[in-house]
Amino acid sequence: MKAVIVNQPGGAEQLQFQDTTMPRVKSGELLIKVKGSAINRTDIISREGKSGYLSNPILGIEVAGEVVDAASGTEIEIGARVMGLVNGGGYAEYVVMPADRAMRIPDHLSFEEAAAIPEVFLTAYQTLFWLGELTDQDTVLIHAGASGVGTAAIQLAKQMTNAKIITTAGSQEKVDFCRSLGADICINYKEHSFADEVLKTTNNQGVDVILDFIGASYWEKNLQSLRTDGRWVLIGILGGTVVEKVNLMELLVKRAQLKATLLTPRSDEYKKKLTEEFVNRAIPLFNQNKIKPIVDRIFPFADIQHAHKHMEANRNIGKIVIHVN
Amino acid sequence: MKAVIVNQPGGAEQLQFQDTTMPRVKSGELLIKVKGSAINRTDIISREGKSGYLSNPILGIEVAGEVVDAASGTEIEIGARVMGLVNGGGYAEYVVMPADRAMRIPDHLSFEEAAAIPEVFLTAYQTLFWLGELTDQDTVLIHAGASGVGTAAIQLAKQMTNAKIITTAGSQEKVDFCRSLGADICINYKEHSFADEVLKTTNNQGVDVILDFIGASYWEKNLQSLRTDGRWVLIGILGGTVVEKVNLMELLVKRAQLKATLLTPRSDEYKKKLTEEFVNRAIPLFNQNKIKPIVDRIFPFADIQHAHKHMEANRNIGKIVIHVN
Repeated sequence: MKAVIVNQPGGAEQLQFQDTTMPRVKSGELLIKVKGSAINRTDIISREGKSGYLSNPILGIEVAGEVVDAASGTEIEIGARVMGLVNGGGYAEYVVMPADRAMRIPDHLSFEEAAAIPEVFLTAYQTLFWLGELTDQDTVLIHAGASGVGTAAIQLAKQMTNAKIITTAGSQEKVDFCRSLGADICINYKEHSFADEVLKTTNNQGVDVILDFIGASYWEKNLQSLRTDGRWVLIGILGGTVVEKVNLMELLVKRAQLKATLLTPRSDEYKKKLTEEFVNRAIPLFNQNKIKPIVDRIFPFADIQHAHKHMEANRNIGKIVIHVN
Repeated sequence: MKAVIVNQPGGAEQLQFQDTTMPRVKSGELLIKVKGSAINRTDIISREGKSGYLSNPILGIEVAGEVVDAASGTEIEIGARVMGLVNGGGYAEYVVMPADRAMRIPDHLSFEEAAAIPEVFLTAYQTLFWLGELTDQDTVLIHAGASGVGTAAIQLAKQMTNAKIITTAGSQEKVDFCRSLGADICINYKEHSFADEVLKTTNNQGVDVILDFIGASYWEKNLQSLRTDGRWVLIGILGGTVVEKVNLMELLVKRAQLKATLLTPRSDEYKKKLTEEFVNRAIPLFNQNKIKPIVDRIFPFADIQHAHKHMEANRNIGKIVIHVN
């Protein structure tokens, strides 16, 4: 089968097709004929050789496709349309998936739309609810509101809570899109200091939950934006890694909870539990068409290098999807 | 009545006695004739004018004593022996206490022993269980193991869980005392790098929970000592406030949860809930003599300045108590 591996750590040009043997199911696994795959930041970090937690030489951590084989005892039948997280191997014509992570694709969604769901919606769910402990009375600040996780988080927060939603984004088009998904306040961070806007709109109280993909460059402003007893969920460092000075007294006075998280390196058991809860609580909202996958652009499998470059250019709204088969 | 106020922000010599009017109970309150009070770090910070969250000019946030008046509708009878947190005013002959925070003193304990319980045991309970989410399978690192909160935390962790307990302390006497309370591994931080010892004794995995009173000077070593998915509870900054260069990638890779907390400025409702849970789950262990208050020294009320200096000298094992009446 055809699969994408990394020639050597580096840029998008290092992504290469290779003919490899088909994977075979082990206990508890499904074999999926991949229809759609999708690009994630973690794939770029893996491509650059900076993550170190994927043992699979084939990139790709999520797919949508058709079940073509299943270990005995699994509950999902051959032929089922499923989507879900895989332990690497998603940029390929076939991949194995732990059966307890397979989600049935809602009937009205295509494989490409389904491929835009697992990673960003599970991440958004985990960060908003498991780590952010978001409640109806809260206000949440979602940075990078037009990104894959951002568009998922806005929709989940809007449809599953009465929380007030504030987002940041870097263009008028992105701001408008965040508003269309249900964000209450949308800040163009290139035109306004988001911390000033957050304090203005929260009566100087700040927000209860922050989804922070940015890290170092937003540190001070995030701290200013956080309410007493707020949960600050760190899920990325697009804006740099090292904070020059951290004043612990400021964290103490706010009783701040800074929770750093990554989804990909977590255990199979964790992903199973997260998927199960998501299927029970969020998938019905897809079936009711209240929440939808946001697909920025679909690339043919052969254009995998362009797909990576498109994400690195940071112009996407929602997910970058790969049409595989 | 006699009460201790701060003349002007500064050292222990600024603590002065003043004759003030007796407080009167409002709805939901008890009037306590104070028998024992106790010294806390937060009193020193207040004395120095650095906290800003106490509106009561009389210092002192915990007492043990006898109920002499009660608002109608409260469930505790006149004459009852109680202990608990107060909203300032504890360094005085009489103080009001919200009735929902009053804990009945176990029969076998004196007022001075009881005065050594509320603040440190409630803080230890809150940090170990509510924030640290300590479980039987975990390992916990308790810094300042011989301090008031440290001695409380060792006992609560030992008696309420099967967690492995590692402590640090700065003298052989303190190390021995921590061991006598049930700590499994006791590290003299003046003789060993605690991070090296922690990694050695945890098979390089690190600990699941850290109780950190130290802050900046321990930052790197605490981060090294923390296990993946660990909870790092920051409850003091005895070792400095500002950390130079925080690497967020290290927090992300460990999926660290840094939770800063203070008890004194929290809401009445929070203290009520914490007290109720503590009464249900921990007070029975005092009644069974499995957990005991650790009194370092009892000072007469007149020696309040010496009591503060004693804490500032950092030589106490357990609580510094004031005999008031």
